Amino acid sequence: MTKWVYSFGSGSADGNAGLKNLLGGKGSNLAEMNNIGIPVPSGFTITTEVCNFFYENEQEYPKEFSIQLNRALSKIEKTTKMKFGDNKSPLLLSVRSGARTSMPGMMDTVLNLGLNDNTVLALSDISGDKRFAYDSYRRFIQMYGDVVLGIDSGEFEDIIEEEKRNKEIHLDTEVTAESWKKIIKLFKVLIKKVTNKDFPQDPVDQLWASIGAVLNSWMNQRAKTYRSLNNIPESWGTAVNVQSMVFGNMGEDCCTGVAFTRNPSTGENNFYGEYLVNAQGEDVVAGTRTPQNLTKKESTKQGTKDLSLEEYMPSIYRELEGIFDRLERHYLDMQDIEFTVQRDKLWILQTRAGKRTTTAAVKIAIDMEKEGLIDKNEALSRINPLGLDQLLHPTLDPQKEKKVLTKGLPASPGAASGKVVFDSEDAVLSSKKGESIILVRKETSPEDIHGMHAARGILTSRGGMTSHAAVVARGMGRPCVTGAGDLVIDHDKREFRVDDFVIKNNEVITIDGGSGEVILGEIPTVMPGLSENFFQLMKWADEKRKLKIRANAETSRDVKTALDFGAEGIGLCRTEHMFFDANRILAVREMIFAETESERRSALNKIKPMQKNDFKEILSLMGILPVTIRLLDPPLHEFLPKEDRELEELSSKLNLNMDTLQNKVKKLEEQNPMLGHRGCRLGVTYPEIYEMQAQAIFESVIEVSEEKKIKIIPEIMVPFIISANELKFVKNKIAKVADEMKKLLGTFPEYLIGTMIELPSAALNAKEIALEADFFSFGTNDLTQTTLGISRDDSSKFLSDYIDENIIEHDPFVTIDEKGVGKLVLIAKKQAIISNKGIKLGICGEHGGDPQSIDFFSRVGLDYVSCSPYRIPIARLAAAQAEIQKEKK
Amino acid sequence: MTKWVYSFGSGSADGNAGLKNLLGGKGSNLAEMNNIGIPVPSGFTITTEVCNFFYENEQEYPKEFSIQLNRALSKIEKTTKMKFGDNKSPLLLSVRSGARTSMPGMMDTVLNLGLNDNTVLALSDISGDKRFAYDSYRRFIQMYGDVVLGIDSGEFEDIIEEEKRNKEIHLDTEVTAESWKKIIKLFKVLIKKVTNKDFPQDPVDQLWASIGAVLNSWMNQRAKTYRSLNNIPESWGTAVNVQSMVFGNMGEDCCTGVAFTRNPSTGENNFYGEYLVNAQGEDVVAGTRTPQNLTKKESTKQGTKDLSLEEYMPSIYRELEGIFDRLERHYLDMQDIEFTVQRDKLWILQTRAGKRTTTAAVKIAIDMEKEGLIDKNEALSRINPLGLDQLLHPTLDPQKEKKVLTKGLPASPGAASGKVVFDSEDAVLSSKKGESIILVRKETSPEDIHGMHAARGILTSRGGMTSHAAVVARGMGRPCVTGAGDLVIDHDKREFRVDDFVIKNNEVITIDGGSGEVILGEIPTVMPGLSENFFQLMKWADEKRKLKIRANAETSRDVKTALDFGAEGIGLCRTEHMFFDANRILAVREMIFAETESERRSALNKIKPMQKNDFKEILSLMGILPVTIRLLDPPLHEFLPKEDRELEELSSKLNLNMDTLQNKVKKLEEQNPMLGHRGCRLGVTYPEIYEMQAQAIFESVIEVSEEKKIKIIPEIMVPFIISANELKFVKNKIAKVADEMKKLLGTFPEYLIGTMIELPSAALNAKEIALEADFFSFGTNDLTQTTLGISRDDSSKFLSDYIDENIIEHDPFVTIDEKGVGKLVLIAKKQAIISNKGIKLGICGEHGGDPQSIDFFSRVGLDYVSCSPYRIPIARLAAAQAEIQKEKK
Repeated sequence: MTKWVYSFGSGSADGNAGLKNLLGGKGSNLAEMNNIGIPVPSGFTITTEVCNFFYENEQEYPKEFSIQLNRALSKIEKTTKMKFGDNKSPLLLSVRSGARTSMPGMMDTVLNLGLNDNTVLALSDISGDKRFAYDSYRRFIQMYGDVVLGIDSGEFEDIIEEEKRNKEIHLDTEVTAESWKKIIKLFKVLIKKVTNKDFPQDPVDQLWASIGAVLNSWMNQRAKTYRSLNNIPESWGTAVNVQSMVFGNMGEDCCTGVAFTRNPSTGENNFYGEYLVNAQGEDVVAGTRTPQNLTKKESTKQGTKDLSLEEYMPSIYRELEGIFDRLERHYLDMQDIEFTVQRDKLWILQTRAGKRTTTAAVKIAIDMEKEGLIDKNEALSRINPLGLDQLLHPTLDPQKEKKVLTKGLPASPGAASGKVVFDSEDAVLSSKKGESIILVRKETSPEDIHGMHAARGILTSRGGMTSHAAVVARGMGRPCVTGAGDLVIDHDKREFRVDDFVIKNNEVITIDGGSGEVILGEIPTVMPGLSENFFQLMKWADEKRKLKIRANAETSRDVKTALDFGAEGIGLCRTEHMFFDANRILAVREMIFAETESERRSALNKIKPMQKNDFKEILSLMGILPVTIRLLDPPLHEFLPKEDRELEELSSKLNLNMDTLQNKVKKLEEQNPMLGHRGCRLGVTYPEIYEMQAQAIFESVIEVSEEKKIKIIPEIMVPFIISANELKFVKNKIAKVADEMKKLLGTFPEYLIGTMIELPSAALNAKEIALEADFFSFGTNDLTQTTLGISRDDSSKFLSDYIDENIIEHDPFVTIDEKGVGKLVLIAKKQAIISNKGIKLGICGEHGGDPQSIDFFSRVGLDYVSCSPYRIPIARLAAAQAEIQKEKK
Repeated sequence: MTKWVYSFGSGSADGNAGLKNLLGGKGSNLAEMNNIGIPVPSGFTITTEVCNFFYENEQEYPKEFSIQLNRALSKIEKTTKMKFGDNKSPLLLSVRSGARTSMPGMMDTVLNLGLNDNTVLALSDISGDKRFAYDSYRRFIQMYGDVVLGIDSGEFEDIIEEEKRNKEIHLDTEVTAESWKKIIKLFKVLIKKVTNKDFPQDPVDQLWASIGAVLNSWMNQRAKTYRSLNNIPESWGTAVNVQSMVFGNMGEDCCTGVAFTRNPSTGENNFYGEYLVNAQGEDVVAGTRTPQNLTKKESTKQGTKDLSLEEYMPSIYRELEGIFDRLERHYLDMQDIEFTVQRDKLWILQTRAGKRTTTAAVKIAIDMEKEGLIDKNEALSRINPLGLDQLLHPTLDPQKEKKVLTKGLPASPGAASGKVVFDSEDAVLSSKKGESIILVRKETSPEDIHGMHAARGILTSRGGMTSHAAVVARGMGRPCVTGAGDLVIDHDKREFRVDDFVIKNNEVITIDGGSGEVILGEIPTVMPGLSENFFQLMKWADEKRKLKIRANAETSRDVKTALDFGAEGIGLCRTEHMFFDANRILAVREMIFAETESERRSALNKIKPMQKNDFKEILSLMGILPVTIRLLDPPLHEFLPKEDRELEELSSKLNLNMDTLQNKVKKLEEQNPMLGHRGCRLGVTYPEIYEMQAQAIFESVIEVSEEKKIKIIPEIMVPFIISANELKFVKNKIAKVADEMKKLLGTFPEYLIGTMIELPSAALNAKEIALEADFFSFGTNDLTQTTLGISRDDSSKFLSDYIDENIIEHDPFVTIDEKGVGKLVLIAKKQAIISNKGIKLGICGEHGGDPQSIDFFSRVGLDYVSCSPYRIPIARLAAAQAEIQKEKK
């Protein structure tokens, strides 16, 4: 027979911490604490399987559930020596949700259950405090009314307010027992009016209805949203914890509090917490009274005169100290603990791993390893890699108030304030004057690179997490918010509008690339320095991981950042980014407008020395570390001027009439540029472009090798291939260039040629392609676009609906879609090693910096991931964690 | 030891017709004819493997080749009793290419090889005709100069012309032996001047050089282009046929001719051919003399007085008759035969399957089956399915001269003449006046549908074989030429320009959708009626094939055409095409501009009755045949007006100010609409659209079922899904609609829900999706776009380069790419039947009408293909051929 109900509190519990999936986080920890002798109020946990059964069977319960529930209830009665509904010694219960993972504020709770017109009298007798008893009763009715009956809490509050007005008092604590009695009557009238039924006096009815309400809260909108935001599957369900009540508000020998076994903000190894005398948990949350410190040390530090618990209840504090130690040693992690003292008797209501800042997380993990509590693997596993962003970028000062205008996507972390400008020229000009600038654009294009560099932050009204703006900003380490759809930008008027707010040129805003917020005015930021602990953690991660970490970088600035953050190579050097420089773009456009091959070659000859210099700079910085250079990828129209004014300028510079120019521009336009004339297709129609690039690469390699007396083996990467034939074609052209140079020079450097796998067809033809390639780099951005048929630039219009409706779990441009894109990566890998066992396999899409994706790539068995420079520490840690996960299996 | 050289002519040959791959078509047939006792001049065939060896080894020959060649030469000498280079009885040779498949005009030929200053004297003696001997010699030098030495034939002709001018004569036949001798001297001087070498006198040198020249011609540009146009792999190589010369020009007892065993134009079972007395093959081609008929019957029919061969050489004719019969019975196909009579001795130089019109092909196949020569399978296999287009569409009268302006892609077959108009409104207006119209556009959009309907033909300057214009035109059966890139259209001036020609509004042009030609002025067309033979063929095809054939159709006109051509259902009814009607588009736009769900619903309520009526019409026509209705697919911006004028009109009609309207239009714009907010993504964000469509479908099914007393089971198809979740979502919404209607009606019709598999992700998730689907229809257009990352609208810019460079074999939008797209179809099928054994599988992309693709779909084991109505006969035949192919394996 299925066990639906697990008891605890009688010295030994049915469950334990290992049954988290079944009993939820709270329930399994209550059982565990019970097992190791920590005082917890007796109770039982209704399993998550009841929740699932409930939803699969039109809100019915399993057959044996009722019997098991009654039996568990009897156990509580036996342990507490109280009786549910008894007129002398009534057992009172709390009913709380408790899912596998903590879902704060999402689920509903009922306290003081079991009170009715009779038992309230007994509570009054037992507590010797009539006011306390009626206050407890009205709290119960109010919570029940809200949670179970769905009556707006405000309606109850109105009744209380009315009474307080009548009595001319202000605080709840001033309300007398008589007034509470009167209020309770009015509460009941309200309930009768709204539900057409009396407030139930039978505690058993109260219990069943409350359990049902908690189960129903699993499907409320808040819970759904939270789950979708946090990738929690609906199928996990929630457990329900029913527990005998303990009261921290029965007098001055009672209190309630929250404690952390270490400081959750700094990670320091000191107890940290707050408590309130004569209060219930709610009161701490409500904020009407200021809680006192747990420890004398903290009180002294804060210079407060309020007594710490250490001083107010020394023996309880010592008991707590012991429990904290035991819990931390038992769970081997910093604990977040709720406790209540009822008439000098300490009860622990909950323990769980405490939430902490990344700074604290790193310190605690390193400390605990040193203390011998955990090993290095465990220490590494304790840190959320994405949290490292907090350490690398300035963040908003959390102390400051802010007026949030709107929210976009948190595209590149960090916060920045600055004057709003609407185009890249202005950004460059203003920044030269030393001003802080936020560049605001509908979207950005490669032409905006210099403006983005000049700006402190970037804000766009269109585009997703992997839009041009997002990718480039992350690469540069610039804070960026994209896809802020409420923004209406008027480029001509140089202003943008959000609802009624109009922000004009040069007005100051702040963006938070970590949250996506767009904020009015300037908000100070704080920049946490990198700690020794951080470097220690990175060292351990490097020892652990097998995946190599490379960077996507092409400017010396980015390359330096990448090296600082520990890059082991460059996995993607995008040569086109080098084309946009103001000094070069004319030659590039000349090349585009060339009518004949020889005209094109002559324009290319102007570009070559510049490209060569770029390569030399990068190669000099990287030394013998591998550098993968991708040949030109974007469609040529990306390099064209967008505005008539620029076109006219070009017309005179190139000595071409406007008609010819405009015709050519029109001819280059594409319906779907992502699927257009780009990548190696350019190399097929205009082989001379790739030939020029190959020459520039070879010449730079030869010169830097000589200057530095090192052996450099460049990796040339061909983008966007469909099948082996294109790679063969381009390879032949490059080999010809190499042969000619070799004839001139006598010797010639080794080089590798590989390809991006970024089209489903390439993945499916991997066996043939691998025969021609020294390496593959999965271009998961394009592979995601084509496999799922989603243009990343247009995805914002529907992806949020998809996530809301649970159609997809997460943005596939952030975390790799394993079921589609992932399958292609796997197929490609399996096929490739059949024909080319030693082929080097990497990935250079945005997923290279996403921990969940890195775990997938590690499982697939790739050799390296390449990500934007600021993501490198994240990738290093995530790769270590992926390795640890693998060992566990 | 590899056998590189195969002899024939000595009664029995080394080879036979089965060695076509090794000996080429010509060589294997020469051997075969030799084996069955047909008189062929002795010779030998150098295998295609020599050609491949030659190219793989820097133009070297295999080691044993030279010995084998000499041995084969000796054999000829033995059979002919002549000697190569001999001064008495010199053996003269022809050297001809001969690939596996006929490549007319592509390869080079050398005749009269072996002549030099000495052997020409012997030839003069033997023939008793000095003039003939020197004429032969100069012909050889001229061909050798052209083919082997690469000297422009014109330079030789100039020398002859000069001599004729000097002698004041006009015809070659008037040139005397002495003059030829003089010309020969001048020829030699020319050769010495150009090549710096003497014309080789050694026949062995001549032979080797000629063999090399033929091998080299395999890689000349003409050959490459022909191969690429006809999908002939380079790896096939060419054989070289070396044969002893026979002369049809040694006197009046000589002749040469070409004959078909049946009429190649009509298919009638009569010998048909032409001959010239005292002439060589070249003379027939040169056209300087008009050839005479082979048969008396044909002469009589043509009313010519020239003697037929039947009359001129009755015994030779009787011998020929016998040979024709034997060859046709041997090869079991209509033969195209070259013969030469040298001094009353008949020689057959070549036999091959004769090219024929589709009309002839159908008649011959049916006749031969009746004659018991071939069976039905063979008859079916004899017809090129694509050729059936000739029977279904008007074609240009081949008798008429034409001025071809330019050439685009042959996008939809048939020819049409009409006045040029540049927009759809004009097309409709003019066609209402009864004028024939050719609609000329850069490209078409769904808004042009009514204009395309009104036009006789469509011409676009952009887009490929599956562009909007192409697809819609094929669907409508309108001739269409797309991607005519030389066309510069000036929409404002209402004219287009090709080089120096300017064609203005209302000027007349003709387009040939079968060849892609754009022609000045009007060319009459001819419309071949469908013959009994055609229907017989279709009947046999239907008996044979297992694939069902459905149509892509949504107008009653298309549906009727489809039924006439034998459609067994509708595989794709595109509901969006119904949205563009002028009466509806306003409601559609109202729906698009709705700000709230309820506004949207109210607009949808206006559209619903119209959609329902459309469905009713289609269902009434189709009766119990299956109809697959696809829910709305294209992005909403496709329905928006493009021009300001229209937008203003809309603004007043919808009572929305222009700013709001323009903002909304901008918001709807997409970077890559193909990968944008379309397909079921619309159904997720605006479920009410699909709900309306479901209601319209169900209501129409209920009403037509009742009216016609039949059971209709509609197939509802969800487009563009990524994974099972979207299908579940839409299914649930439709089920709700069905449930609500059921509650009202009591009963409710059965219906099927399926999905398009048109994204790689969908194919890779087929197992899960199949659990939710009653059927799959592969949308191979979109699947090709995403798998290969090629936008069909932009593909014209590079696909031709890809084909020229042999990177791809054929346009993947015409013939399915088996290596990429095909693999996904296979994966999807295998996965789908794991979870849903009975799932119905079809395809509805443009590939559904392409024979090679149909063969693939048949091998995969799909249940049906769906294609545009005019492709149905092609699909029926191709499906039968696919079945026959399967049986052969």
